Amino acid sequence: MGKNIESNLANTPHFNPLNPQEFRKQPHEMVDFIPDYYQNIDSYPVLSQVQPGYLRANLPQNAPSLPESLETILEDVKNQIIPGMTHWLSPNFFAFFPSTVSTAGFLGEMLCTCFNSVGFNWIASPAATELEMLLPKSFMFQGTGGGVIQNTTSEAILVTLIAARDKALDVDGSGNLNKFVVYASDQTHSTFAKACKMVGISPRNIRLIPTTIDAGFSLSPIQLKAAVEADMENGLVPLYLCVTLGTTSTTAVDPIELLAGVAKEHGMWVHVDAAYAGSACICPEFRHHLNGVELVDSLSLSPHKWLLSGLDCWVKNPTALVKALSTNPEYLRNKQSESDSVVDFKDWKVGTGRRFKSLRLWLIFRTYGVVNLQDHIRSDVGMAKIFEDFVRSDPRFEIVVPREFGLVCFRLNPDETFGSDYTELSNQKLLDWVNSTGRVYMTHTKAGGIYVLRFAVGATLTGDNHVVAAWKLIKEGADALLKTV
Amino acid sequence: MGKNIESNLANTPHFNPLNPQEFRKQPHEMVDFIPDYYQNIDSYPVLSQVQPGYLRANLPQNAPSLPESLETILEDVKNQIIPGMTHWLSPNFFAFFPSTVSTAGFLGEMLCTCFNSVGFNWIASPAATELEMLLPKSFMFQGTGGGVIQNTTSEAILVTLIAARDKALDVDGSGNLNKFVVYASDQTHSTFAKACKMVGISPRNIRLIPTTIDAGFSLSPIQLKAAVEADMENGLVPLYLCVTLGTTSTTAVDPIELLAGVAKEHGMWVHVDAAYAGSACICPEFRHHLNGVELVDSLSLSPHKWLLSGLDCWVKNPTALVKALSTNPEYLRNKQSESDSVVDFKDWKVGTGRRFKSLRLWLIFRTYGVVNLQDHIRSDVGMAKIFEDFVRSDPRFEIVVPREFGLVCFRLNPDETFGSDYTELSNQKLLDWVNSTGRVYMTHTKAGGIYVLRFAVGATLTGDNHVVAAWKLIKEGADALLKTV
Repeated sequence: MGKNIESNLANTPHFNPLNPQEFRKQPHEMVDFIPDYYQNIDSYPVLSQVQPGYLRANLPQNAPSLPESLETILEDVKNQIIPGMTHWLSPNFFAFFPSTVSTAGFLGEMLCTCFNSVGFNWIASPAATELEMLLPKSFMFQGTGGGVIQNTTSEAILVTLIAARDKALDVDGSGNLNKFVVYASDQTHSTFAKACKMVGISPRNIRLIPTTIDAGFSLSPIQLKAAVEADMENGLVPLYLCVTLGTTSTTAVDPIELLAGVAKEHGMWVHVDAAYAGSACICPEFRHHLNGVELVDSLSLSPHKWLLSGLDCWVKNPTALVKALSTNPEYLRNKQSESDSVVDFKDWKVGTGRRFKSLRLWLIFRTYGVVNLQDHIRSDVGMAKIFEDFVRSDPRFEIVVPREFGLVCFRLNPDETFGSDYTELSNQKLLDWVNSTGRVYMTHTKAGGIYVLRFAVGATLTGDNHVVAAWKLIKEGADALLKTV
Repeated sequence: MGKNIESNLANTPHFNPLNPQEFRKQPHEMVDFIPDYYQNIDSYPVLSQVQPGYLRANLPQNAPSLPESLETILEDVKNQIIPGMTHWLSPNFFAFFPSTVSTAGFLGEMLCTCFNSVGFNWIASPAATELEMLLPKSFMFQGTGGGVIQNTTSEAILVTLIAARDKALDVDGSGNLNKFVVYASDQTHSTFAKACKMVGISPRNIRLIPTTIDAGFSLSPIQLKAAVEADMENGLVPLYLCVTLGTTSTTAVDPIELLAGVAKEHGMWVHVDAAYAGSACICPEFRHHLNGVELVDSLSLSPHKWLLSGLDCWVKNPTALVKALSTNPEYLRNKQSESDSVVDFKDWKVGTGRRFKSLRLWLIFRTYGVVNLQDHIRSDVGMAKIFEDFVRSDPRFEIVVPREFGLVCFRLNPDETFGSDYTELSNQKLLDWVNSTGRVYMTHTKAGGIYVLRFAVGATLTGDNHVVAAWKLIKEGADALLKTV
């Protein structure tokens, strides 16, 4: 029987989607397409000007039966997709926090896709697990803990919350979540409250402690202590504190050491969300913001925000994490995992499957070296400083909070005649006008009730000239706006 | 002041990690490197033979101060990383389920990395949101619902569980999770129980209903009904049913229509985990497995397992999902989101940031067309059928459960003289020997107490000749093993 089958084999035509001839041709075409996009990116509106639903009208809604050529598809990318992009890599992108990219990060991603390994446990991809274990050490942490690449900050907070919750439930024994209370400042990213609700913390027990502009929107250890003590008097159990290093609104820095001191008195899990500003700590002049980090249980940072790559989460003592998240189905059993000589990263996160993402950071560190990465951080901070000086030099504007990193928080001066609603409206109008030109994209926030314009420097292609042009455009907007009043 | 700054700008040397000259050079080098890897992949041991800790001894543990050349780094990839890889793309990889890749998927990933957009809400990347909204329609679903790309099946189950939980808590009002019960078969992927624990379902209330080999390890609607009724008599509340289309151990198919009928009588959320076999339903001959899918609340499938790309999750009525997961911080507010004319995908999943992943599936559909993708599924199934026939032709082996897709579950015949422990040991020995050669990688499972060898066909580069060679190797192992007895 085996013989008959074998003799028929040659006649079976197989579709080969990894055909080496095609692979040697098409990705080269794409590599030519991409730098062209980067070179033309200045000519596209940075904030897309399309209307909702635009794409449905312009692209087929069903997969074709037969193949189409790469040329046809790239034409659609140019004519249909690119006009609908908000160009995060545009040098005129000053919105949110930038999503940085680099040639080395790109190479790392290519290699990750090339191997396409699924490293749920050690044996499934030893190199993937071991390279990831090397990274935190070569990065900025040493000691008994370890780091693991999560998908998002949300996931890092989610899994550490679960670890904290299950550890506390073990001690408490009641199985009742309703007593647990979590703490953070009112400036903490909304993903914190979302993660708390996901794990079953009652929204009534999420304390977002108010901050003030006078304290730079930083969480006060004294207020934290007062909140914790009040909760304990009411029979509640303090569970988790989220400290932020560089808040989304204004890059406020919570004092890790003092806050961890308070939290640790009551046995709480302390997490540091260093998504944005953590990367800056590769420069000695910013390192002091990490003082006290040895006291915390976990820390996450997003290298894509400032270090040209993906997200990392570092956990001091992963035991509670692994206890909460480990699984051991028969189909994944293997000698190495059972010998306890290896790490299985599936037990440190939500999903089972995981890509070989550490290749990106590894390629970035090695291709650029620490010296260039520090230069990258410093040049962004320097450009933000230039913008800050521009704002200070124009009496119609004010800096709302002192600048520390690459974000400038500013606004048109409050209007004493017409009041704060009017001030907010003017700033909103200025922002809408600037963004409608497609020449610059900025976003806003509200902090301490104040409507603030955010100018975040950090897109990889941004140079001094773009900052100068952005400021000219903002002034032009202010001229037009204040003239019409 | 502005003027002084401007005159100094020309002197500022900036590090440019997106230097167009480098970008036009280095990614081309990588594109040459990758097909070389694919062409040599046959010569590497498919299951890595390194020892735990091997990499620490061979790579620097700190990031270098100064840049290194791509040549140096690629040398380390060749000499240090590749020997530590378990090669998921090897044509001799028959373990777990395959992680498929294709030139078009690679191109989509390149484009996704090129744009590097962060599509948390519509305005942040209109094209990214709108292309993702087109996909489910062009794929296989129509109707009132929508699909969103999640990171993993675990995340798809997690977010739908949270939606179901919060919806039920709203109705129940007690705020007490302890009454909720969830159901699945004992063949369901371990990630289901993990997700349940993550959202606070008591492990006591996770019902993994036993299946039998006689029923092909499929979940029985009668047993489900009995379990639900028993729980309700005890004052518990049925919350969520996870139906699997193609289980991890043996690709068993749970009957969607009958099971959803039982679950819907009691108002439960029904999720279909079609991670593996969902992709096969692009072929009419497998479509019947989806009968009843219109009754379910959500369905997830992993196109990386069989459709050459990433994960998707389809939700029939996303209202509960969005209600449980939406956030609306000031810094993300914008007119389009507030007008309700657009979809913000951050509210459909755990994280805020998300990449433009739909480009991959889109490139795959268009580059290959439905006809080739169907051919791809069918040729894998055909090769599995060849292997099944080989097994059936050798009286020393047996097929444990009927083959339906690309996975063959088989073993050395039970040994009536020495009993079942001995049979298990023989099969384990055979597996270890085969894997130790580095020429084939298979894995095992236990189903219904039986130790089963799994031969999963589907790695993109696998051809008939690899299946023939694998069978020869397995026979060689059996010869040696049975001779020594």
